Amino acid sequence: MTDVSIILFDGFEPLDMAGPVEVFGDIGEWRLRYFSEHGGSVSCRQGFKVMTEPFSAMTPADGILFVPGGMGTRPLSLCTDWLRSLAQFAGESRWVLSVCTGSVLLAAAGVLDGRKATSNKRSWSWVTSFGSSVRWQPQARWTADGKFRTSSGVSAGTDMALAFVGELFGEARAESIARRMEYIRSRSADDDPFSVR
Amino acid sequence: MTDVSIILFDGFEPLDMAGPVEVFGDIGEWRLRYFSEHGGSVSCRQGFKVMTEPFSAMTPADGILFVPGGMGTRPLSLCTDWLRSLAQFAGESRWVLSVCTGSVLLAAAGVLDGRKATSNKRSWSWVTSFGSSVRWQPQARWTADGKFRTSSGVSAGTDMALAFVGELFGEARAESIARRMEYIRSRSADDDPFSVR
Repeated sequence: MTDVSIILFDGFEPLDMAGPVEVFGDIGEWRLRYFSEHGGSVSCRQGFKVMTEPFSAMTPADGILFVPGGMGTRPLSLCTDWLRSLAQFAGESRWVLSVCTGSVLLAAAGVLDGRKATSNKRSWSWVTSFGSSVRWQPQARWTADGKFRTSSGVSAGTDMALAFVGELFGEARAESIARRMEYIRSRSADDDPFSVR
Repeated sequence: MTDVSIILFDGFEPLDMAGPVEVFGDIGEWRLRYFSEHGGSVSCRQGFKVMTEPFSAMTPADGILFVPGGMGTRPLSLCTDWLRSLAQFAGESRWVLSVCTGSVLLAAAGVLDGRKATSNKRSWSWVTSFGSSVRWQPQARWTADGKFRTSSGVSAGTDMALAFVGELFGEARAESIARRMEYIRSRSADDDPFSVR
């Protein structure tokens, strides 16, 4: 059983989390777990509260780390202790995935140095002020570089998640999940209608 | 301020809820509230728990009622008391929206009689066993009939939500929200690639 450790915080963006979770929940070999620094409930911008386990309960080794974005990334991007924990989890994980401004947290934690990454296109100048050696991609629905997968804003996370499942388990399995979700996929990592270019 | 009353239950499907919530959260005139029969936390199939208010705290009059689907609709579709509450809320609401098998609950509650409706295409024979006078649409991304909007499975709810915002506030506002979400819309209610036909 592989743990998918989902990092939440106040002000996470619900669809950043729920799109990929909808995909990952169909992988019977994976166990989805929800974490925040101190555990307990965290609130998204749209007001609902999700229950989480504390960081201290996480066992990221060889697992999948998943980081959504949202307005809550703004204060966290300045929070040294929180970022140090994230860097440690990312180091131990087999795979590290982010959606939207989740990649800012990974960049601020220093783990994307030298890597290709993307993020929300509406916040591009803020995003690219982090991680001076990150190779920020202004035109990408998502990026893949080593063990890192980062997606563009909000909805792009679902496309990245399906592509990731396809990469690990074969395209037929990804396609079957997309059909169950009645989801019209964006299949190309390079096809980015929201590019800042 | 208009209340959007979101009905949750154990086994709700996360993207059914989170896609439309991502859209509705951008409407400053709307207040999103999350309810379950007895309040407290409810679990989705993908394991995360959301905090809710009890049905007794709901004030649906002139508001928007929103019902997601999911495997949790199966036991609820047989639960007379729960369905009686739903029928009352639907009767008082100005608008009633469902995603995926959420429409089964509305049909079982009797409020879709004589109305066009759609639902999840993978569960079509089970879906259409409810509401003998409902005009079930086998080919529809979503349907609009009077105050009722129903969508096909899971992802279709996001398209329905954007169309609903467009209808109420103008297409420019819907398009602006879709761009913020970096969401590639399905704009036609009739364009249904997952049709059972």
